[in-house]
Amino acid sequence: MNRPPYTAGIHYEYPLIIKKLLRTPLRYAREQEIVFRDARRYNYGKLHERINRIACGLDALGVKHGDVVGLIDYNSHRFLECYFAVPMMGATLVMFNWRFALEEFEYTISHAKPKVLIVNADFLPLLEKISDSLGAVEKIIVIVDDGAAVDTSMSVETEYEDMIERSFRSYDFKDIDENTTATLYYTAGTTGLPKGVYFSHRQIVLHTLSLAITLGSFASNVQFRSDDVFLPLTSMWNEHGWGMPYLATLLGVKQVYSGKYDVECIFDLFKKHRITFSCCIPTILHMILSHPLSKDLDLSGLKLMIVGARLERGLAKAAMERGIEVVSAFGMSESCPLISVAHPRPGFEELAPERKLDMVTSAGKPSPLVELEVVDPLGHPHPYDGHSIGQIVIRSPWLTRGYYNDPEKSYDLWQDRWMYSGDLGYIDSEGYLHITERTKDVIKSGGEWISALRIENLVRRHKGIHDAAVVGVPSEKWGERPVVLAVLKPEYAETVNEDKLRDFMRKFADSGEIPKFSLPDRYVIVPEIPKTGVKKIDIRKIKKTLESDSGS
Amino acid sequence: MNRPPYTAGIHYEYPLIIKKLLRTPLRYAREQEIVFRDARRYNYGKLHERINRIACGLDALGVKHGDVVGLIDYNSHRFLECYFAVPMMGATLVMFNWRFALEEFEYTISHAKPKVLIVNADFLPLLEKISDSLGAVEKIIVIVDDGAAVDTSMSVETEYEDMIERSFRSYDFKDIDENTTATLYYTAGTTGLPKGVYFSHRQIVLHTLSLAITLGSFASNVQFRSDDVFLPLTSMWNEHGWGMPYLATLLGVKQVYSGKYDVECIFDLFKKHRITFSCCIPTILHMILSHPLSKDLDLSGLKLMIVGARLERGLAKAAMERGIEVVSAFGMSESCPLISVAHPRPGFEELAPERKLDMVTSAGKPSPLVELEVVDPLGHPHPYDGHSIGQIVIRSPWLTRGYYNDPEKSYDLWQDRWMYSGDLGYIDSEGYLHITERTKDVIKSGGEWISALRIENLVRRHKGIHDAAVVGVPSEKWGERPVVLAVLKPEYAETVNEDKLRDFMRKFADSGEIPKFSLPDRYVIVPEIPKTGVKKIDIRKIKKTLESDSGS
Repeated sequence: MNRPPYTAGIHYEYPLIIKKLLRTPLRYAREQEIVFRDARRYNYGKLHERINRIACGLDALGVKHGDVVGLIDYNSHRFLECYFAVPMMGATLVMFNWRFALEEFEYTISHAKPKVLIVNADFLPLLEKISDSLGAVEKIIVIVDDGAAVDTSMSVETEYEDMIERSFRSYDFKDIDENTTATLYYTAGTTGLPKGVYFSHRQIVLHTLSLAITLGSFASNVQFRSDDVFLPLTSMWNEHGWGMPYLATLLGVKQVYSGKYDVECIFDLFKKHRITFSCCIPTILHMILSHPLSKDLDLSGLKLMIVGARLERGLAKAAMERGIEVVSAFGMSESCPLISVAHPRPGFEELAPERKLDMVTSAGKPSPLVELEVVDPLGHPHPYDGHSIGQIVIRSPWLTRGYYNDPEKSYDLWQDRWMYSGDLGYIDSEGYLHITERTKDVIKSGGEWISALRIENLVRRHKGIHDAAVVGVPSEKWGERPVVLAVLKPEYAETVNEDKLRDFMRKFADSGEIPKFSLPDRYVIVPEIPKTGVKKIDIRKIKKTLESDSGS
Repeated sequence: MNRPPYTAGIHYEYPLIIKKLLRTPLRYAREQEIVFRDARRYNYGKLHERINRIACGLDALGVKHGDVVGLIDYNSHRFLECYFAVPMMGATLVMFNWRFALEEFEYTISHAKPKVLIVNADFLPLLEKISDSLGAVEKIIVIVDDGAAVDTSMSVETEYEDMIERSFRSYDFKDIDENTTATLYYTAGTTGLPKGVYFSHRQIVLHTLSLAITLGSFASNVQFRSDDVFLPLTSMWNEHGWGMPYLATLLGVKQVYSGKYDVECIFDLFKKHRITFSCCIPTILHMILSHPLSKDLDLSGLKLMIVGARLERGLAKAAMERGIEVVSAFGMSESCPLISVAHPRPGFEELAPERKLDMVTSAGKPSPLVELEVVDPLGHPHPYDGHSIGQIVIRSPWLTRGYYNDPEKSYDLWQDRWMYSGDLGYIDSEGYLHITERTKDVIKSGGEWISALRIENLVRRHKGIHDAAVVGVPSEKWGERPVVLAVLKPEYAETVNEDKLRDFMRKFADSGEIPKFSLPDRYVIVPEIPKTGVKKIDIRKIKKTLESDSGS
């Protein structure tokens, strides 16, 4: 036969890119629903069409491969759509955290430099305040949920739904390099200024696959399958909503989004759609259980993955008493975020209740493809003995390569090809990780990060302060709350007290320099700050003191 | 601080390599068991140690990165160990099919050129017969199950267990490029000579992840989880035992291997270890159900994935009546092999029995990351309408790039960056694939391939034959069986008949030119061979004729 010789490379080199995740639900679950409050319901076929239209719309606004597109919104189908549409164009989706203090919020936008900004109209006043930092922004797309006219001094290009309606229904999503950056978001850091973490297509695809196996293939009380109904209660602008929307989409799961935070609306959605799987921070779980309306809510059988902060035993117990199947999971902004899930081991049902609680409230076991050790200061791994505490180090295919455009801050993140988590912990003989404390001066409260160093620096501005330290103390509701230890100058010993310091600090929240939730709960006047041998403040000793203090 | 500037690349670029799959079971299930008949039981900790020792042993025999190591054995823990140990060294594991005709078997060894050959003593006589073709083989490691002395003319270097015992317990498995070739096996092809298909570390890792999600995350009657007990009844030298041993290992599942085929032993293992998940070809299922001893076997709740050939409705029904949860899956040697699994859709339980059978006996829906279409001769995809028949084409991250060292045969495998399966089928409105017939002249019988062309060429050697065609006709037990259509020369019309042709063909099996199981079941004398418009033989018409023929 007359034909050219076979050449290698004629096969298809399949890239791990986000558009590939969309194929499966279109085959399995084209008619399955995606719901936004009472406002919008459509199926996966329509989701696919909307993703195409959004890409066409952004393309018409000049978005090209490599550009940055920003999104500022509440949890909604818009996040889901942009999770796919923007990276599938080869652009980077950056998600801004509007809960940051204004100064931090402004910093993230000026640092990420989005070319196009998609913003919920509710946040236009926020943008107006920082309009000087929007130099890179060429076009603004506004999201209007209630159809109201938009009253703003900003120059708005189009409305989100209008853009979708006016755009072509088919965009030619090309195959791209799997290492193309897909997403970017910011995490509060030790120095006070947020740091950007970024993830490639390959990383998000592999993260989705491992999350699926973690929640699908291991015997556990909390599993996630194609016949679940999913409503996320984690913020979608952080950590890809714990990666769950990508997974729910791959599996063709019914997804329900709850928009602006409103407990009654969330409860209604739970009832109406019989939600079977959610994930949230402990604070939200606490809120749900203690809310008067929740008594009418049948929560039995709900599977709940607790993320973002330690699940306290009391809270876990309260949830289990309501019939909720609860499990805690450990992740970091830097890790996309999946690291480990606290699946109880086989035989769990026969265990003593206290041992069960130990398991489901631990930080769990690493997911497939995650490597995790606790190491001594020289980087040597500790044995799994249940007491040797060391820094938690990880490796997986989905860790940020560094902080976005920030080589200086990236420096300490990776050492000897391991990512240093900044958390301390130990591993027990059954392989479960237990986190004991943080080495970084960051306090996790209500799913947000509070920089202890930043608070400390502000407290130190008070003329009566000789020395100060800020630590996070455990809180059932918030995970951790900041507490100030203050050593007064002798001449102020009589005039400065807890109330004075509280008033002093409130000014910084009022002026927008720090978010309100980062104001310390308590100010404890002490004769000196406990220090370790190397002159670092001794967090363990301080916490011990505070615990015995509050116990008295 | 005095430190060098941050340099990109200090992070860990995580490769998708087979050694990474071993981490999870060591954390989750170190004490879980791996069983070989009544002969050997050990846990995952020991598996890890044995993999290290095997690598040390092979290293001592001179195996280096890029070398080829061959394995000839029954289903056993040796396959499991070598699936990991050999590729983790950077070498390629080639698995030889001792069920091939001697000539084919010889061809595969001379083609793959293994440097070291690990062989069960039962197959040494086979090697002796082809010793002229073992030029590349430098060392032979023999496997002796019963401790008997080995009587062979071959030069044997060591015994498998001896090597393990004498070797160091720790091998330094380096990270390697994820595109390194890991495995190679041979599939019978249209021209009669087997073709090699090969897979990289990346391909096997991604195949394992997608198989996990396919069997774990979709609502179905057949799921595979960490608390299952697994015994494979598919051949481990083909298609990585359908990829299940890699997956079972990732999940820390209890694995049971049954060695040389022995029904009573298999039944005993099923009882003793309470097997919950298996996979097999229809022939084996038929054998199990019809075996007198199986009446004493409680099969209710057994989850069974049927692979390798079409699951006939009668057989599926018989299995369901015994309480077996059965589902069919579609794969190819060229695809590692996962393509699709026939998970019933949600609401399955309420369906009419006939519709249920349609679903679980179909070729199913493509797994995550698999793209599948049926296309017309110009490559345009058909609609999912339940009747438009076209060739099945696929894409996934785990398809062989071509046939091993065989550019000529590779030529037709890939077209327009799609792999052409050689199967015809249609997709129904619910997205299920149904395979109707094969375009390639290959007959699938009892999990093995029979080349129709080869049989045809042999039949044509008979002096009385004017024209001939060989087709596969459906068989409940074997999947398909070959049937010959023969047109006689007028002068032989009176002297040649079915028995004469049967005797003529038996010679080729006796001489080892073809395997015995490829001898045709029937020889039908016909006035002419039905041909299509383009002068190809009209398989559909022939099959129709044969069906009405056997129905009379």
